[in-house]
Amino acid sequence: MIFPDMLQIDPLVASCRKGTLTPTDIVKEVLARVEAYNRVDPAVWITLVPADRLLARAAELESLSASDLPFYGVPFAVKDNIDVVGLPTTAACPAFAYTARESAEVVRCLEAAGAIVIGKTNLDQFATGLVGMRSPYGQPHSVFGSEYVSGGSSSGSAVAVAAGLVSFALGTDTAGSGRVPAAFNNIVGLKPTRGVLSTHGLVPACESLDCISIFASSTADALQVEQVARAPDIRVPYSRAMDPRKLPYGTFRFGILHKEDRFFDGCPASAVLYERAIQQLEELGGTAVELDFAPLKETAELLYSGPFVVERLTALEDFYHEHRGDMDPTVGQIFDGANKYSATDVFKGIYHQNLLKQEVDRMWNAFDVMVLPTAPRIVTKQEVAAQPIAVNSMLGTYTNFVNLLDMAACAVPAGFTPDGLPFGVTLIGPSFTDDDLALLAGRFHAVSGNTSGMNNVAVTSSTCTASTEAAPGNVLLAVVGAHLKGFPLHWQLEKEHAVLRATTRTAPDYRLFALPDAVPPKPGLVREKGFVGPGLEVEVYELDAAGFGRFVSALPQPMAIGKITLADGCEVSGFLCSEAIARSGKDITASGGWRYATL
Amino acid sequence: MIFPDMLQIDPLVASCRKGTLTPTDIVKEVLARVEAYNRVDPAVWITLVPADRLLARAAELESLSASDLPFYGVPFAVKDNIDVVGLPTTAACPAFAYTARESAEVVRCLEAAGAIVIGKTNLDQFATGLVGMRSPYGQPHSVFGSEYVSGGSSSGSAVAVAAGLVSFALGTDTAGSGRVPAAFNNIVGLKPTRGVLSTHGLVPACESLDCISIFASSTADALQVEQVARAPDIRVPYSRAMDPRKLPYGTFRFGILHKEDRFFDGCPASAVLYERAIQQLEELGGTAVELDFAPLKETAELLYSGPFVVERLTALEDFYHEHRGDMDPTVGQIFDGANKYSATDVFKGIYHQNLLKQEVDRMWNAFDVMVLPTAPRIVTKQEVAAQPIAVNSMLGTYTNFVNLLDMAACAVPAGFTPDGLPFGVTLIGPSFTDDDLALLAGRFHAVSGNTSGMNNVAVTSSTCTASTEAAPGNVLLAVVGAHLKGFPLHWQLEKEHAVLRATTRTAPDYRLFALPDAVPPKPGLVREKGFVGPGLEVEVYELDAAGFGRFVSALPQPMAIGKITLADGCEVSGFLCSEAIARSGKDITASGGWRYATL
Repeated sequence: MIFPDMLQIDPLVASCRKGTLTPTDIVKEVLARVEAYNRVDPAVWITLVPADRLLARAAELESLSASDLPFYGVPFAVKDNIDVVGLPTTAACPAFAYTARESAEVVRCLEAAGAIVIGKTNLDQFATGLVGMRSPYGQPHSVFGSEYVSGGSSSGSAVAVAAGLVSFALGTDTAGSGRVPAAFNNIVGLKPTRGVLSTHGLVPACESLDCISIFASSTADALQVEQVARAPDIRVPYSRAMDPRKLPYGTFRFGILHKEDRFFDGCPASAVLYERAIQQLEELGGTAVELDFAPLKETAELLYSGPFVVERLTALEDFYHEHRGDMDPTVGQIFDGANKYSATDVFKGIYHQNLLKQEVDRMWNAFDVMVLPTAPRIVTKQEVAAQPIAVNSMLGTYTNFVNLLDMAACAVPAGFTPDGLPFGVTLIGPSFTDDDLALLAGRFHAVSGNTSGMNNVAVTSSTCTASTEAAPGNVLLAVVGAHLKGFPLHWQLEKEHAVLRATTRTAPDYRLFALPDAVPPKPGLVREKGFVGPGLEVEVYELDAAGFGRFVSALPQPMAIGKITLADGCEVSGFLCSEAIARSGKDITASGGWRYATL
Repeated sequence: MIFPDMLQIDPLVASCRKGTLTPTDIVKEVLARVEAYNRVDPAVWITLVPADRLLARAAELESLSASDLPFYGVPFAVKDNIDVVGLPTTAACPAFAYTARESAEVVRCLEAAGAIVIGKTNLDQFATGLVGMRSPYGQPHSVFGSEYVSGGSSSGSAVAVAAGLVSFALGTDTAGSGRVPAAFNNIVGLKPTRGVLSTHGLVPACESLDCISIFASSTADALQVEQVARAPDIRVPYSRAMDPRKLPYGTFRFGILHKEDRFFDGCPASAVLYERAIQQLEELGGTAVELDFAPLKETAELLYSGPFVVERLTALEDFYHEHRGDMDPTVGQIFDGANKYSATDVFKGIYHQNLLKQEVDRMWNAFDVMVLPTAPRIVTKQEVAAQPIAVNSMLGTYTNFVNLLDMAACAVPAGFTPDGLPFGVTLIGPSFTDDDLALLAGRFHAVSGNTSGMNNVAVTSSTCTASTEAAPGNVLLAVVGAHLKGFPLHWQLEKEHAVLRATTRTAPDYRLFALPDAVPPKPGLVREKGFVGPGLEVEVYELDAAGFGRFVSALPQPMAIGKITLADGCEVSGFLCSEAIARSGKDITASGGWRYATL
């Protein structure tokens, strides 16, 4: 097998299941790539899992059934502030290092799904930085040039994905560490809602804000990883169960920067690419709405110039007092800043944070997501060396406030400057919108090029979750209207013990109409060759044949069942409708689905 | 008109609407009662609104339509740490006093609904205490004896309600200040979910925990007040919109203390009354489940022996440093304790709080509410004077942890010791269960005597919200099954533009059955003379006659429409069912309603 440039999850797993590839093949390929890339950039990894241990893990997987493990054989990297049993956790500070006695909960979930830990990646010490230069283990560089920073703090993780060394990598994100390096390496960086991934086994930065984040070559891959890694964890003070919140799909409103707030630190090419991203989102059905950046900026200041610096010290108080001299000079200086705050300052800072959140939360009435530059521009190592704190702060302009305001974010590639340097934008939504945010980010990625990584190769960024195959003798049925979960006729599916297999979309050449005088209200789905719409949301159910037969025989006029094509090209049974009757009703295609339509 | 002993809201407002009573009559009665009770206990009020201002407010109301104002003419008291425009706010500390330039948001909401502020009540200074003795404005006593404390910190507010001086009173509750005084004065104390009542205009105690609370003579009155006073407020860091969460009704599980955790500070009569309350809740359909008190106790310790003391200081830092000598000695001593905590201690305390919350939140899998003593026992002023801090801590045994764990609570009278001293229990539920918690507390109050106040007189504690009257020409229809909001046939009501008027219950002599083979699933309601069940939840809709006619004519067999009797005795149209068919199905009466039934 010839491995693709970017090791996307689905093709690897599918090949293993077909038997054309084994986890051993994958491990050998990864070892070869890692070795080769170490000659380009020796600062990506702090610890690699020894080859014999990797091969033993591959053999272990080969004794298991590939079809039971969603990430069977998928190689991934772990930022070195997250524990992997038996490996040192350094947090990029040799004096701090210890050998982990158990793996972080997120690592445990991913390994249980069949994934393979390749090694631990470099980072800004104690995850304090956005540059990737605050490490005694070397300074990884952007895959687009050795003079440019990789971004941080999750420097090695981003490079490992962008260079095609692993399928995905775990980072962490308190102030933007899971997003800035994605932008500087042309990959996706998904920062989940705070608390939905356990932070058990993570060296804390700011424990009330820290998120484990995901780097991948596509939004679909990143979201899959988040979904597998999610689990509430009572050992974690800020753990929360995922409680998914929908975003509109077909037509949506997105908040953008006012012209006067568009700060790119003197890089006009970034400004052009941001403007282009806005236009591409408008082409997808989005309406741009200018937002008030002032409260976001005010929030960001709490993080480094306010009492949240105390939270960094809280995590490492004993270490700091005993080993201040062993810390990176810039990181140590930031920790020193915590000493000037009193106990009451901390409560005042938290009140200020909550008040700003009250103000910002109202913004969601005006738009569904925000779309901001991930960073103003990429910078050189030389610039950072000259002004380590000021340049770092500049890089966090559009990321620092996100966790303080309890938002989810997804950084996506958004093209290149004429000099060949990468630029990214980040879609930001309210907490718990992770799934739909990644879906929308994937739609954007698709129109903005659908490429990623060092060689900027095409990736599959499916906008729908797998529609899968039915068990033998069973039938997949896509429903689009009154049979959706929560709608009046859903009981007809429940009566036949139908099981929800996927929530996905039709191909783009379908229109949806509200049928006139239907009781209960129903839509009609009509295919129109050449039409390019948003695709309509469908729920795909699996039924046994007899149940499906009874279901179809009970349908009244003008409904009919035929085959419909989904966004990923699969065909399943689904509801169709007399075109004449449908077209006499209101066209609600732009809503993206019956659930979102205004009648 | 002869005024009742306890000034319950509904009869007062109804009399004003009928024209048999005016706000001026109410003001005059209240003035007379206040004057008379001042001879019994001169420490209830810190500031009374002057009589001429009260009469002017009554006259103002008389120029308005009583039917537009839910609390038309209803007199209430305000704890003197909550602002009322033009009156001093002292927080029981003369050196701190200022004249409020605007009313607290909650006061504004209640006045807008027609209520009348009578005055500002005494409290433990800065709401720091559970005794009612830490005030330079005197020490109110329990309405059951001048040697006993009133409880605090909302001392004057509780006495004002219990003595029948006002219909309800606002208190505040951080550690139990809205519950302990309810127990010691035989009234209801409702502590809403944190954030659903605005704290704008409140002198903070612990801003992240403070709640404005409500004292009333019945749970129905207290809940009405909470509902009118609720409003999200972006000026408040911890404000949240109410997002009601249901509790089960007919059958429910309630957490109780293990025998070895039943601490009553040497008062066996309290133990007997707690046991009796458990039995009464079992008679209502509850199943008692023993709970693990250890994490609740550990949480409570964070409040006074942990960094949350720092939060008290945060609110009043400048005042404390300039006026330490002007503070109550015991309160001052508590504030002094904050000086020993560092900034990092605060974050550590907050993590500890959140970890304990993770642990306690799992308890809700085992039961729906907790039922605990409100306080171990009532104490004398002499006991408090001898050990001001230790006795105070003992009183908070069962209240201190509630706000730290983000719970709602409703304290209810639960009988008297053989010495004639009051005892209370508190129902505690997860955040946002306020409505159903008050409903359940009301059912308990009904079986435990349904009396309250100084003279322990009968009160109306309706378990249903008003079923009201339909507009002329319209019809009220109670639905019980597939037409409920969110259920498959609800669209038939929407089609006729039916408007939801109330969610309430049937009289107790109805049973509910799951009809066999009904598609969509439906229940059948059958009346059985002499049967005493929980009453079944119904939604009462108002339709115009034509719509109602169309609705009825479309019903299939075996459904029928006739009159049904609601919990408050009103009759409305509703669904009935062939008794033979109904009784061939499963009896689901114990569930309390179709929404809660397991089929």
